[in-house]
Amino acid sequence: MKNGIFYAVSTGAGNTELLTLQALRVLSKCDVIFYPRTKRNTIALESISELDLSKKTLVPCDFSMSGRDEYEQIVLQCKGFLQNGSDVAMISIGDVSIFSSAAKAAIALKDEGIETRFVAGVPSFCSAASAAVTELCQGDGRLSVIPADAYFENGKLASVLAEEGTKVLMKMGRHLEKIIALLDELNLVQSSVLVQNASLENERVFRSYKIVEACKKGLEDTYLSVIIIRQD
Amino acid sequence: MKNGIFYAVSTGAGNTELLTLQALRVLSKCDVIFYPRTKRNTIALESISELDLSKKTLVPCDFSMSGRDEYEQIVLQCKGFLQNGSDVAMISIGDVSIFSSAAKAAIALKDEGIETRFVAGVPSFCSAASAAVTELCQGDGRLSVIPADAYFENGKLASVLAEEGTKVLMKMGRHLEKIIALLDELNLVQSSVLVQNASLENERVFRSYKIVEACKKGLEDTYLSVIIIRQD
Repeated sequence: MKNGIFYAVSTGAGNTELLTLQALRVLSKCDVIFYPRTKRNTIALESISELDLSKKTLVPCDFSMSGRDEYEQIVLQCKGFLQNGSDVAMISIGDVSIFSSAAKAAIALKDEGIETRFVAGVPSFCSAASAAVTELCQGDGRLSVIPADAYFENGKLASVLAEEGTKVLMKMGRHLEKIIALLDELNLVQSSVLVQNASLENERVFRSYKIVEACKKGLEDTYLSVIIIRQD
Repeated sequence: MKNGIFYAVSTGAGNTELLTLQALRVLSKCDVIFYPRTKRNTIALESISELDLSKKTLVPCDFSMSGRDEYEQIVLQCKGFLQNGSDVAMISIGDVSIFSSAAKAAIALKDEGIETRFVAGVPSFCSAASAAVTELCQGDGRLSVIPADAYFENGKLASVLAEEGTKVLMKMGRHLEKIIALLDELNLVQSSVLVQNASLENERVFRSYKIVEACKKGLEDTYLSVIIIRQD
């Protein structure tokens, strides 16, 4: 039997309206959909609520930080469906090329000879920029997208913040408050905007010193937070 | 009369399938659509061919490199429609926050008190990554998006290429061949992929030394070229 095709499908920042026509078409034809699930949410699955899922096999994936074994288990599970001839989609919020487990799974499967395709989507930082009505690049300026928890932990965050261009800080689930304190210390808060839950009902946009105020009151939903630091 | 709303609408990398449901909804309700037109193409207009445009007022914009006057003229033209109460969309391929004239127009109009909104989309570099089935960020890695013609001209390209992380080179309409020669000289070609016309019928993907070969034969369509340089 011919193997199925594996699709890593971007669903956009979370709102179902950010699905592309291509994502809808591909998801419609896949019998099996793997979706990431965390303790707190199933945003990726909610992001495809536009689709009729009643006849799909929906498989939750519990990706955890350290779970290499879990990850291999998920890839193996995908392979089972693919070898039975089913087309399989693994969905990912944002764009699959940007910090996505679906891409990682796709590349592991591709290395084993499975036909894999990526379906591009709206990355969270573009959705955050739209929510804040702000540009990320203009003219001759560059853009840096920085996984900020990791850079904070290895002590390199201040030095990349000193480079020219606009910076996007994402993946700040653990250190968001400390990162905001660092921006304040470096006098970067006045050119910053913090967007939480971009595109979702509970979207929030804090500009300049409002970020520090909000932080003092306590920020929830640190997982879906993006900070844009404009250099004008 | 109440002013209309100005929407800077992302249409994705070019293929009409990359439109989001949100872009379709917003474009459906706008009576007036401004679209960029160059001497060679009207890709942005083609990217919305999914829509019924028969009842829309379609206004071409000839954005040129140096045309500050033309630009102000276009903003003034938008303002005319908006002050007559029409909702106006200006479309942009890729995402409006990434090197977009529509965003620039939106911010000029916002500064004059017009209500403006951004509609996020799929940036060209995400579409290029999907075409090449390659990741832009994974784990603790960062991503730099570099307007490469400008960096080549100011002599800074080699130094930003030496930084850590994945680099995306875009906006290489003038110096693509010289930039490829520089990548070759810096031994970066083997970890590079060149994607031209991502998502379109004439999409082409060149990996590693195939880039240099293709360049020697002569590359067309330099305008819609993206180079991804992976750091693994």
